[in-house]
Order: sequence, then structure tokens, then C-alpha cells
Amino acid sequence: MADVLGEIEQYIEDHLAESLEDLRRLTAIPSVSSKHEGIDDAAAFVRELLAGAGFEARVLPTSGHPVVYADSGGDGSGKTLLCYNHYDVQPAEPLDLWESPPFELTERDGRVYARGVSDDKGQLISRLAAIRAVRAVTGGLPERVKFLVEGEEEVSSPSLEPFVEENRDLLAADACVWEFGGVDPDGRPEVVLGLRGILYVEYRVRTLSRDAHSGSAHNLPNAAWRLVRALNTIQGADGRVLIPGFYDSVQGPTDTDLQLLAGLPSTEEFYHEHFGVKEFVNGHTGMDYRTAVYEPTANIAGIGAGWQGQGSKTVIPAYAMAKMDFRLVPDQDPEDLFSKLRKHLDDGGFSDVEVVKLGAERAATTPGDDPFVQLTARLASEVYGKPAVIDPLVGGTGPVYPFRAFLGTPIVTLGPGDPLSNAHSPNESMSIANFLLGTKHMARLLVEFGDL
Amino acid sequence: MADVLGEIEQYIEDHLAESLEDLRRLTAIPSVSSKHEGIDDAAAFVRELLAGAGFEARVLPTSGHPVVYADSGGDGSGKTLLCYNHYDVQPAEPLDLWESPPFELTERDGRVYARGVSDDKGQLISRLAAIRAVRAVTGGLPERVKFLVEGEEEVSSPSLEPFVEENRDLLAADACVWEFGGVDPDGRPEVVLGLRGILYVEYRVRTLSRDAHSGSAHNLPNAAWRLVRALNTIQGADGRVLIPGFYDSVQGPTDTDLQLLAGLPSTEEFYHEHFGVKEFVNGHTGMDYRTAVYEPTANIAGIGAGWQGQGSKTVIPAYAMAKMDFRLVPDQDPEDLFSKLRKHLDDGGFSDVEVVKLGAERAATTPGDDPFVQLTARLASEVYGKPAVIDPLVGGTGPVYPFRAFLGTPIVTLGPGDPLSNAHSPNESMSIANFLLGTKHMARLLVEFGDL
Repeated sequence: MADVLGEIEQYIEDHLAESLEDLRRLTAIPSVSSKHEGIDDAAAFVRELLAGAGFEARVLPTSGHPVVYADSGGDGSGKTLLCYNHYDVQPAEPLDLWESPPFELTERDGRVYARGVSDDKGQLISRLAAIRAVRAVTGGLPERVKFLVEGEEEVSSPSLEPFVEENRDLLAADACVWEFGGVDPDGRPEVVLGLRGILYVEYRVRTLSRDAHSGSAHNLPNAAWRLVRALNTIQGADGRVLIPGFYDSVQGPTDTDLQLLAGLPSTEEFYHEHFGVKEFVNGHTGMDYRTAVYEPTANIAGIGAGWQGQGSKTVIPAYAMAKMDFRLVPDQDPEDLFSKLRKHLDDGGFSDVEVVKLGAERAATTPGDDPFVQLTARLASEVYGKPAVIDPLVGGTGPVYPFRAFLGTPIVTLGPGDPLSNAHSPNESMSIANFLLGTKHMARLLVEFGDL
Repeated sequence: MADVLGEIEQYIEDHLAESLEDLRRLTAIPSVSSKHEGIDDAAAFVRELLAGAGFEARVLPTSGHPVVYADSGGDGSGKTLLCYNHYDVQPAEPLDLWESPPFELTERDGRVYARGVSDDKGQLISRLAAIRAVRAVTGGLPERVKFLVEGEEEVSSPSLEPFVEENRDLLAADACVWEFGGVDPDGRPEVVLGLRGILYVEYRVRTLSRDAHSGSAHNLPNAAWRLVRALNTIQGADGRVLIPGFYDSVQGPTDTDLQLLAGLPSTEEFYHEHFGVKEFVNGHTGMDYRTAVYEPTANIAGIGAGWQGQGSKTVIPAYAMAKMDFRLVPDQDPEDLFSKLRKHLDDGGFSDVEVVKLGAERAATTPGDDPFVQLTARLASEVYGKPAVIDPLVGGTGPVYPFRAFLGTPIVTLGPGDPLSNAHSPNESMSIANFLLGTKHMARLLVEFGDL
């Protein structure tokens, strides 16, 4: 067994250049789902990559962007592992902050840079590298492996839930490896067990048919002021959301969750150092800082109105918009909260503020005592030489809910990511050393999962 | 006299094409002062135009953009008339809302379209047309005429006050014609006697060194929220500014002002029709609507942070900015208010919100019973065939204060503008019929001013 693992790891190292070439080609496709760009090209190339790794792979339609589904067909152990990934990426803007072009894979100081290199194209390429290595060394795969690679993850996966529900037989599996995974700021492998939900909305206010001279501001209504006043009713200065009923279904952390949280290394220093944070929200530190993830948030992701260029322009903005993502915790229902938000604005006299729903997902978690969780954590410790960190709930969002609700699989994370990857930001990157570690971890899971 | 006036008016009509050609060339120069573009070209061309109309014309430096100063030198009556204009314009953005290119004069349905065609290049060309006509028909000018044409009016004229103060002998005059002027929505000529002041500021907030993933919004501070909360402390929902001491120096309308306001035709219907306004601020109508100009305002002219593109992006904005113009009334002092704004933010816990002053001017008015005001109004009624409207204070801003404080001249408005001109907005335009009327009014004032 040790020999086989050693050979697999050697194979992964020897074939690094081929993996990076696959990644270069995949990141060259600017598959920005919010702009509907490069979608078909990216799906076709992912299908080609999976077919090249020995899968029966197909591009399947959904109500939105297509998914790529792939099946290894082999099932020596009778067990099936499902890999969930996505081929879409966040917009690359602001472009002037990139040190190299966002859709040209560029290597600097042991990292590769490009939009999507970490979230999520590098993760997918890592899994393919693990599968190729296991196949090459052992002559096959010890279990059946399926892939579901979607194209709307960065826009809240609007088509995924119905797709999973309608295709639960096709997707049936005993366990699932989630799209992201990697190490914490101290290089410890993380196993994430839960993701928050989201309600993503856009607010739109129009007070005039066109911008007007601000000399009439004593009589003409200003769209930016309307929006600022409406937003101010949504969250208090303490971060508490002011929408009536917003917290009705919130489940706080369980005792097990609190134990896992207490065991987590802190990321406070990381954010002080790399994001220049002077003070965290509400002065959070220590256990407060860790448990805050169980507090749902209302985040202004963007706001815009009127003149934003250089110098002064004296206009009354006719139109104003803001984008907001509410991060939700179990068991908040985004559809219910959307209704409550609308009612809150209406009751507050803001019926003129239009609210458009751009995305909605529920939070979901996997129990910490599941054997698949324990196996993944043990193998991580072996590969990384450090104890794995098990995180019961992280702040981000993913479409975990339909997998937990319709497939019932336990879900873990593993992969080449790290906190310097700048996901969703300029200069997104991936560490090549972590790519090798994450790929070895995946390979080991492929080897041992059949014996679970 | 009637013969001479008739000849002058005929001359103005016969030479319309030459005036529009001058205007075409002047508006082709994109002299956007907030971007420091086209400034020297525009100043040089204005100097050339004034020299061509018989003036001794010079480009003079200031602490900012240069001014063009011109002097006719003739003074048959011993009286001097000063014309104040500006060659700079507002930015043309948003460009996609223009129906023809903003810097190409385009004629449609009796109007000419281009940025600056009304504010203020068409006004300057109209005065030159009047002067050329009077010279051509009478062989000279019955009084001395001076021009001061500045290049920073659209950015609050930061260099003008010291220039006027230092050059009070050069600029000495008995009366002044202001840069803008024209008719109200019903085509009645307006004589404006007062302009509000301004304090233009930019707010800047940075909470992170770079944008972060919004999954960390429970711990990482959001610049857009900081800014929204700070803005919300500046103005109440009723439009009342909440900065302590903001209203200390405010002089409300006098009895004379109220009489003049009561005589003003309403512009309510105009704004309902052309700006789609459903309800005015605080439900203003009738006399409330007219007297509201004596209320200073805090107008959000622009706001921006985070993702404003299509669809969703889940970021915590690291940086947020807003632009705000406070329109001031007599006797508010913008420098004093700027200090009070800073203190207000500091006292409210918003020391992290930077405030940058981009412009400051005081309000000023001319008394309604001045003989020059009465002459201008009488001549307007004769040219337009309708009684003139005398407006004691309008909502916009101009650098009237230094002219009133250092030169002491009464100041009136006249010219080719109208409420459809879209000043500061896309598709800025000027009516050709109003160009002829405004030019005739100016010519008549040149003929009769000497006898005042």
C-alpha cells in the first residue's frame, strides 16, 4: 500500500506540467457567469478534459447554463464518490489592480495567477490529476466516480437545485467532495462541513426620468438619498438585521459545533496582515470572532448613483442601485426572507424601492461524526503532516442544500486552495505546492474510500 | 431709434449662420474643467473670438485655469458694462444617453445640441453676436464693454474670487450681465437677481486594504455600510440638514423677496412633464415650492462602491466614496460649514470618513429695486412681448459673491437659455429662436445702457 501511494504521489509530481497546461487552457476561457460569457466554450473544454481522464462525459442542459456530467463507470468497491465543481468564475474587475492579465495563467514565486485559478478551475484540474495518477499506477479506480460541474456557482446556482432534484438517480453517491478545499493560514488542511445560504438582491430606485441640475434639490427627489435611507433601515450599526422576522428560523451553533469552533485556529492575524483590518465588526475577537459565522449578515456588495468620476459634477441622480447579499444560516429560508424584506420596505414607506432577487440558496451542514468526514480528516493529516482542522460552518455559500436534501450524502472539502488565493478579488492565485498536496490528498481518498 | 433697433435685429437674423459656426467650433473643444481637458484650446479660441469682435483680448493666468479678459476700450457714455461668462463645461457622461455626439454641434427641430451649447458657450456667442450687430449698424459701442470668461465655473470657480479681488480696477464696471439667462417654461424672459452658494465635498471611506469575499462580512468591516451610515446622519428624511449650527447664518426671504416669489410663474408642471416627478420633496407645491429655494440643501451628487455591473458579485467593498453638494443661502459661509461637517462626523464616531473639499462659494443677491434691474426687465418685455419675471434667488450657484463684494455692481441675467436646455445632462441643447431673442435683448441693453 505504501509503495502504491508513493508511486501515485511520484506520478502526480512528475506530471505537474501537464496539469498546469490544462489549467492554463481552462483559465484562458473567461467564463464569467454573471456576464454569460465563455460559458459554452468552458463547458465543452471541461467535457473534453473529463473524457480525456477516462470518463463518459456529457454536457447536459439546465434551465440556465449547462452542466457537465461525467461517470467513470467503474465500481470495484460498490461505492460511489461524487465530485461537485464549477467552471464559471467571478468577474475580473477591477482590471487595473491585476498585476498580470486575468485570463492568462502567469507563474510568479511558486504561485500561478489567473481568474478562477483557485475558484474553481484549479480544484477541478487537481481532481483530474489525482484520478489520472491512480489510474496510471493501479490500472483503474477502486470505486465509481461521478462529476457534476456546473456553470452558475458564482451567481448563486439558480438552476442546480431543480437539476439535482430531477436527476437524483443519475447523481446517486455515497459521499461527495465539495468544489473547494485547502489549507488555513498556518498550512493546516481544512475539512469544511457546512456552508451558509444566501439571498442576493438588487435594489433599484428611480425618482426622476433623468438626472437634474442639483440647484433644484430643494424640490426634486434624489434617488441616491432614497436608497441610502432605505438601506439604513435594513441593518443597525451593530450589524443586526432590522427586518422583522429575519431571525425567526435561525439555529445557533450546537454544543458539537462550539467544540469544533473552539478548536479552530484563529484567522484574525491573517486578516490584520493581509486585509489591513484595524478592528473587526463589533470588536469581535477570540470565540466571538469564531461564533460570528452563525450570525446571518446583510452585506452591501455594491452601490452606485450619479457622478463617480474625478472632481465635481452637480447633479441630482435620477437612478440609484445597490447590491446586497444576505448570508444565511440553518434554517433560514431565502424565499421567506425575500417576502419579509419586501414587506419591511413597504411598511417603512419605501414601496418605490424595487427589489430584484438575483440568487437564493439555503445553508446546509454535514454532521462532524460522519465516518467519511473522519476518513477525510485522517488522510489529510497523513498527507500534510499536520492535524486537520474541522470547521462546522464557514461564511461562504454554496449549493450544499440540494445535495444534502436530495442525495443525502455527507460532504467534505479538500483541495489546493489557501487563504492567499484572493478568490473573488484581483490577482487570484494558487500555490503550486498546495496543488501537489491537495492532489495527493484526493488520490489517497480515492484509494481508501472503497474500504470505508 | 426704432429704425436703428430694427436694423440691428435684422443684422442679427442675417448673421445667424456665422454665429452658429462660431458655436460649432467652440463646442467642438471638450473643455471639461473637472477633467482638466481642452482648457488651453478653449481659452485661446475664446480670445480669438473676442479679438475678432473688436476687443483687446488677453488670456490671463490664475491660480487654476486661465481666464480670458477683454476690453472694448470705447466709452462714449462714460459707463462700463461687464459680461461674465465661462468657457468650461460639465462632463458629457453618461455618453450612451446622447442622441448625437456631445462635442459635435447637431441641429434638430429648431434646436442645436452639444455639451456646453447652453451652459455657457451659446450665451457667450450670443453676446458676441449682439456686439457685432451694434457695431455694424451704429459704427461703434455706446459704452465700454469688458468680458471676463473663466474656465472653472463648473468646478465651483476656485480661482475666481482671488482674481476678482486682485483685479478690481481692471474689472471695474457700473453693471454686470451674468453668464446665463433666458426664458422660463412659458417663454417669459427671466431676470435672476441671486444665486445660492455651494460647498462641494467628497466623502472617502476605506475599511480594508482590498475587497474581500463577502462570506466574511460577519467580521470584516464594509466601507459601503460605513458610508451609508455616515451619510444618513447628515440629512433627515425631511431634507433638513442635521449638522449642528448649519442654519446659524441663514437669512430667510425678505418681504420684497416673498412678493417677487409670489409673482413667479410655477415650474411645477414643467418638472412633472419633463423630469417625470411624481411628488416634490416634502410634498412642496404653490408658495412652499417657491420659497423652498431659501432652504439650503445637502444633495448626494454621486455614490459608488463595490460591484455595480450586471448580475451578482459577492464582495465586501474595501473602499466607498460619495460626492455631495450643499447649496447655500445668504449668509452661510462654506468654510465655516466645512468645519462643522468635519466636527459633526467626528462627534458621531465617523472620524474614519475622510471629507475632501472640492469647491466652496458664497451666495449673493442684487436688490430688486436697482435701476439696472428695472432697465433690463423693461427691455426684456419689449423684445419678448411678455412681462419679464424677476426671480430674487434661484437654486443654482455661481461666483456672484466676489462681484458683489469687490466690484459692487448690480448683476442681471439675460440670454438664449430655456428650461429644455438640459444643462449638466445628456442632450444639452439651445433653441435657435431663443438665441435670436436673447441676442436682441442684449443688443438693446447695449444701446440703452448708456442713457441709464
